[in-house]
Amino acid sequence: MQVKDTAFARKLGAFVALSDAELDILSAMHGRRRTFPAGRDMVHEGQVNRSAYVLAAGWVCSYKTLPDGGRQIVDFQIPGDFLGLRSVLFRTADHNIEPVTRVEASEVQFSDLFEGFAQSPRLATAVLWAASRDEAMVVEHLVGIGRRNAQERTAHFLLELGARLTLVGLATPRGYACPLSQYLLADALGLSAVHVNRVLREFREAGLVTFQKGRVEIHDLAGLVALADFDVAYLDHDGPLLK
Amino acid sequence: MQVKDTAFARKLGAFVALSDAELDILSAMHGRRRTFPAGRDMVHEGQVNRSAYVLAAGWVCSYKTLPDGGRQIVDFQIPGDFLGLRSVLFRTADHNIEPVTRVEASEVQFSDLFEGFAQSPRLATAVLWAASRDEAMVVEHLVGIGRRNAQERTAHFLLELGARLTLVGLATPRGYACPLSQYLLADALGLSAVHVNRVLREFREAGLVTFQKGRVEIHDLAGLVALADFDVAYLDHDGPLLK
Repeated sequence: MQVKDTAFARKLGAFVALSDAELDILSAMHGRRRTFPAGRDMVHEGQVNRSAYVLAAGWVCSYKTLPDGGRQIVDFQIPGDFLGLRSVLFRTADHNIEPVTRVEASEVQFSDLFEGFAQSPRLATAVLWAASRDEAMVVEHLVGIGRRNAQERTAHFLLELGARLTLVGLATPRGYACPLSQYLLADALGLSAVHVNRVLREFREAGLVTFQKGRVEIHDLAGLVALADFDVAYLDHDGPLLK
Repeated sequence: MQVKDTAFARKLGAFVALSDAELDILSAMHGRRRTFPAGRDMVHEGQVNRSAYVLAAGWVCSYKTLPDGGRQIVDFQIPGDFLGLRSVLFRTADHNIEPVTRVEASEVQFSDLFEGFAQSPRLATAVLWAASRDEAMVVEHLVGIGRRNAQERTAHFLLELGARLTLVGLATPRGYACPLSQYLLADALGLSAVHVNRVLREFREAGLVTFQKGRVEIHDLAGLVALADFDVAYLDHDGPLLK
């Protein structure tokens, strides 16, 4: 696969129209490809001097653990996303990263990032854009847990995933493949798995969306958007700002 | 005041040891100083092509509104912080920014940021670090609202503010000036103002911390850290990584 066809290039391409020279820099970042099995942490909270990764294939979740043994899933990462960007900028990893499926990811060290920025300030702004978009998603999850009811929160989450996957060519307005269990959804949404199951049944019976057998099928996109009060602006997908 | 003494330079200096040339670039970013009164939004959700700001003096809050008229405060910004960095990278502002006090802030346009990055990739990584640290704080607020009880959440929040203010020279381990009302605290913590008031009274009676007359006085730092399970690592304050 050429680098311009990777999810990473497609994603950064939403902010900057990438030149051949910039694609070459991304190519170098994609060099050290590694494979990780599902269910074993790639990065632990508290580890020092960790690499970051760019996810090429598969899904991961990032989460924090609490003294009582509970966990809060902060977000899921999909192909094209950075994993543990803070782990390479900060001295100490402040969260855990666990593959949900078998994943392929390219290791990115601080020096790769720094040299890429030195060669192309456009790429530096694109990475800043990607980090800002990650923050915008965490903000929406905060608002969801703080202020949205279980239905609104779940609908918002499914629409966000759909928009993110569409950007990297892994979804259509009809739906997408989704490997998340109801337990993982529950830990992300701050609900119990039983509650998530009930909400998904209500959505199915209302003809909005079906999530079963690893696939989200969206039957009534407009209805789901209205229920969630979903405004895609926070994902900033309107095509490159830097031509 | 020389630029090296500003909160912005002190904050970025926690990640890169700033050279004279880099301080000059920051100085240029600090050029267009503006004043904003308390209580009137500087940036509205949905506005397009907005500037970002670097806060020089005063406090602001960033928040999202909900269809039912409620709001979730995402964070407060203090001197040295970026305001609306996403507003300059994204086409559409995805949140509101409102001064809590009268503020002074320097306007930063996309071209300022881009030219700064072109001149110094070190500065680009410092800005990426600052944005990542903002995200780390939103993650903690998500974990707080999702998984911490009212006492833990409030204690964590007061300690986080103290650590942030210390970095820019506005707090000591004994305490700090804080202009936030209990209503603002409540909207940030996802609690009612009555509940916040009760928690603060419990803290005072337990000899942990007093928050009154615009000042947070920390009486038992170790006790407060233990209650909140507060680990400052997510703020990454251990001195410059890039010498």
